[in-house]
Order: sequence, then structure tokens, then C-alpha cells
Amino acid sequence: MSATIHRLDARTAPSLEPMLHLVAHDMNLVNQVILDRMQSDIPLIPELAGHLIAGGGKRMRPMLTLASARLLDYSGARHHRLAAAVEFIHTATLLHDDVVDGSDLRRGRRTANLIWGNQASILVGDFLFSRSFELMVEDGSLKVLKILSQASAIIAEGEVDQLTATRRVELSEERYLDIIGAKTAALFAAACRIAAVVAERPQAEESALDAYGRNLGIAFQLVDDAIDYVSDAGTMGKDSGDDFREGKVTLPVILAYARGTAEERGFWEEAMRGFRSSDEDFAHALTLLRRTRAIDDTLARARHYGQRAIDSLGLFANGQAKKAMVEAVEFAVARGY
Amino acid sequence: MSATIHRLDARTAPSLEPMLHLVAHDMNLVNQVILDRMQSDIPLIPELAGHLIAGGGKRMRPMLTLASARLLDYSGARHHRLAAAVEFIHTATLLHDDVVDGSDLRRGRRTANLIWGNQASILVGDFLFSRSFELMVEDGSLKVLKILSQASAIIAEGEVDQLTATRRVELSEERYLDIIGAKTAALFAAACRIAAVVAERPQAEESALDAYGRNLGIAFQLVDDAIDYVSDAGTMGKDSGDDFREGKVTLPVILAYARGTAEERGFWEEAMRGFRSSDEDFAHALTLLRRTRAIDDTLARARHYGQRAIDSLGLFANGQAKKAMVEAVEFAVARGY
Repeated sequence: MSATIHRLDARTAPSLEPMLHLVAHDMNLVNQVILDRMQSDIPLIPELAGHLIAGGGKRMRPMLTLASARLLDYSGARHHRLAAAVEFIHTATLLHDDVVDGSDLRRGRRTANLIWGNQASILVGDFLFSRSFELMVEDGSLKVLKILSQASAIIAEGEVDQLTATRRVELSEERYLDIIGAKTAALFAAACRIAAVVAERPQAEESALDAYGRNLGIAFQLVDDAIDYVSDAGTMGKDSGDDFREGKVTLPVILAYARGTAEERGFWEEAMRGFRSSDEDFAHALTLLRRTRAIDDTLARARHYGQRAIDSLGLFANGQAKKAMVEAVEFAVARGY
Repeated sequence: MSATIHRLDARTAPSLEPMLHLVAHDMNLVNQVILDRMQSDIPLIPELAGHLIAGGGKRMRPMLTLASARLLDYSGARHHRLAAAVEFIHTATLLHDDVVDGSDLRRGRRTANLIWGNQASILVGDFLFSRSFELMVEDGSLKVLKILSQASAIIAEGEVDQLTATRRVELSEERYLDIIGAKTAALFAAACRIAAVVAERPQAEESALDAYGRNLGIAFQLVDDAIDYVSDAGTMGKDSGDDFREGKVTLPVILAYARGTAEERGFWEEAMRGFRSSDEDFAHALTLLRRTRAIDDTLARARHYGQRAIDSLGLFANGQAKKAMVEAVEFAVARGY
């Protein structure tokens, strides 16, 4: 138990470096598993999967498994294979997402669907998803299999839910939080939780790590949503305004709509239906977001979840791992500034 | 051990009825699991999944699990849940296949991708796939999980391999058999094999059932390939000539190409590249297939695998279940006539 109070505003320029450093050795081993197990006799599979997997992702989810294991002083090696399984689930989801969204840029590179086509992206996603279950089966823990198969089903439900909500500007904040809780936060939560399972820790620690991952995942997604209205492709590897042009209703839009005048609501309705996709329209959207403080308050919501993530670590002893996990939250939230 | 020699040509008009009858009670219970577990709080999921699942499929793969369990006198109930898991894997594959192929007709009905769009089909497929693993995890057998996760990875590999081979008319018969062995026969084999696992039978019986399913699966696919050149949508729920117009290189084309004159090969090359998709072109293709006996010999190949499927049952005692499983093979092969 620790009485230290960690605060999101305690430091300037928080960094992911401490966590990267904490897991560096383990991550090399995870990368070995990933490279080894994305192979196939069908050359297109490692080619396409490798494009995305080697393409400079932060490996956030497997990193969380590894960091959580370090927090628990786990000394075994099972988490390497499971962290790779988590990354495969995530990669499969990204491949399918980019097809569903018709995206052409991801992490600053052309998407797999743009290079190899939607068909290959769908099928290689299916392959990686199956491969992730093979990795879990090799590990042999039914409890881990349950956590990750449930998370996978919830992710898919969240994706369908979001599809249903596309272009519906009247989406409530509550429903939106449900969606990102499913499509993003569920895998963050599972990635952390399985570390407690392999380390054979009590239920309370399992739940605490689940809460850490879940709240971090929500914070992470909310900041991503905000960034989509303020970034440019050069710095973030993602086109600014993608969500706007695709009619993706995210929290900034939900807040701006809820707080807008009748005329402004009309604008958002047209925009989310796809009738306002010019640069001028996007500039007008930014003006409205600023006036309603929608971006700032999206980031405030993110800080709230970030603080909850940090507080969920209260029952773990202080140390290098905990410090890195706290700073990772601070970093995730600070990206929006 | 049985000395009875079952022959494919021993009977006229073989039927699937004996197998349907054999598993009727169990299948009701499987259908309960299927209906129960395709539910979700997201209404689009059961709506879309239900369209395909309730849409008159033969439930061939879960039927094989149930029939195999009857063959082994298995008296438990685990196979109901696992048969549902097998059907979910198959349904997920169909949803993704129809997107990949751009199909608009399946089992005589409009495809889900045509009604709800590619995006929903991809994501609901992912959901069903995840749900199938949840069902397996509930069953709790790591051995079953291993068999079905491997089969799933192999299916995806086969699909990618087939995509790579699209429009390549020089595809060898060997490579084609590899493709359908992966994309179709692997799940047939796994569906049968898991019955031996839950019934806790010796390895030899597991392998025999695997071989039954695998050979039946190949026979089944080859007959499907032949039917695509002779059926009409009214009777088979599939448009005649779909494979031809999509440039899908199947065994009839492989044989006709291998046996054709230089001029005929030129025709097949153009056709598979998509430059010969008129009704006249299709009629010409049928003429070439007849002249080279490509359809007849595709069906002869199917009979070969059908006979191997039947012979793989040699070590099981005669009885109602075995009789039904033999006749199911005869039926599968006879569909082509």
C-alpha cells in the first residue's frame, strides 16, 4: 500500500521512456515471438502483416502486459507469448478497421488495404486472429483464454456499435463511452489483467490491473479523438480531420453539438452526414470546437480517466515499474497538448 | 472392424436424410446454443448473423461433429456447444468470403454484405469468430481449442493462398488441392476430430475421423466447383458461372487448361483475367469443359476422395451412424450428377 499521491499535473513533458526502458529486454523477446509466429508458407501473409507490425507501432498493449508483469515481480516467461497474442489481436483489429474505415494512412505509412487491397487485409487479419489463439492455447491457461476471447468478442461488438452510430451526431456521451470502452479499452484491460493471471496474484490485483488498463484505454482513445482535430499527418502519422470527413462521431463533436446553437447543430448534422467535408468546413468545425471548449473538455475527460488509472495502482508497492506505469498515463494524456 | 465394402456406386439417389435423422435431436440442441450465443446488446449483430445462420444452410460441419459423436456412442453433451463453435467459425468465414468475393447471392438469398454492407459483415464475422472461441473456452478442453485454432489459422492461410492464385490459370492441380485442403477440408476434419476428443477415444480413431472429414471436405468442394458450371440459381442457390466470371481458378478450369490447345489456353487466360465474362463466353467455356471432360473428371476426383472418406471409417463398427456417414459422402458426391 502506498500513500504517495500521483498527480497528472506534477511534471512537465512526461514520457513513455521509463516504460519503454522497463520492458526493453522483454519486448525484444516478444518481438521474436511476433516475427516468428507471423510467418507462413503463403508469402503474402508475413509480407502484409510485417508491413503493419514492423511499421513503427508503439506496441502499447504488449508493453502493458510486460509492465504489469514487472509490477508484480513475475519472473517467468509465459507473458512473452501472451503479449505477442495480444499484439496479434490488435493487429488483426487494425487491419479490419482500416478496411471498414477505408483508411489510407496509418502510423504515417500507407495502409495495407491501400497496398494489397481489402481482400488480403481481411484474410490476413483473420489469420493473425487465429494465430493469437494458437499462441494462447500453447500457453495453456484457460483463464487467459477466457479473458482474451471475451475481450475479442467485446471489441467486435464495440466496432459494430460504432458502425451503427456512424454519422449519428445525437449520440450521447454515455453511449460513446460504452463504444470506446469496448473497442479500445477492453483490450488494454485484458492486456494488463493477464499479467496478474500468469503471476498467480489475488483477484484484487487482477481487478486493479484491469481497471488501470481500462481507464488508460479510455483516456488514450479520448486523446486520440482530440488529436484528430489538431494534428497534422507529419507529426502524428494520421491525417488531421479524418474523423470529421468520415462522419465519425467522437467526443469533441458530441460536446460541440450538445453545447451548440440550433444553427451550429445543423452544421454538425450536415457535416456528420458527409455534406461538409471541404477544408473550409473543417476550419469552421475547429472554430465551433474552440468556442464550445469541446477539445479542452475532451482532454479534461481524458485526464479524469487517466487519474483513475493511476489511482487503481494504489494497492501495488512503489518502485520503478509503478513509476513507469504512472508516467505512461501522464504521457498518454499529455499527447493532446 | 468391419469387412463390409461400401461402394459409391452401390445405390441410386443417395440422400443426406439418414444423417439428418441421426442427429436431429442433437441438432435442435445445437441450434439452441447457436441462437442463444449469437445474441448481443448490439441489435445489428443477431440481425445480420441470423440472416445467414437461419438462412437455410445445411449445418454440414456441426452435423459432422454430431454424427461422429454418435458413431463413437458418446453419451455426453459437450459436443453441442462445440458443434455450435464450429458453425460460428464457418459462418464467420462465409461472411468474410462474401466480402472478399463481392458475392451477392448465397444459399439462394441476398448476401449479408449486399444488405448491410461490407463493413458490418467484416465486423460481425469477427464477433462470431470470437464467440466461437468463447464457446470452446467454456467447454474447457485445450486439446479441442488447439485443433480448432489451428484449423482456423489454416483456413485463413488457404483463403489468402487462393486470393494469391486468383486469375492464375496455370495453377497446378497439386496447389489447388492444397488450397481447398486448407480453406474447406481443414474445418470438416476438425469438426469430426473433436468428437473423438470429447469421447476420449484413442488416437487412431481421432485420426480416422479427421481423415473422414478431410476427404469428405475435398470431395464436397470439388463437386461444388463442378456444380458452379452446371447449376442454375433456382436449384442450387448459387449463380451458375460465378467462379468463371470472378476468375476463380478451380479444378474444372485447371483440367480444361491443361488439356486444351494453345488457342483454348488463350481463351482460359483471357477469361480468368476477366476479359471473357459474357454469356457467350460462358457458353464457350462449357463447350471446352465438355470436350476436355473436365467436369466429369473433376467429379471422378471427387469420387476418389469420397471413397477415401468412406474407407477411413473401416475401423468403426457397423451401425446406423456409420451407414449415415457413408451415405452422406455418397450424397455429397452425387450432387454433381
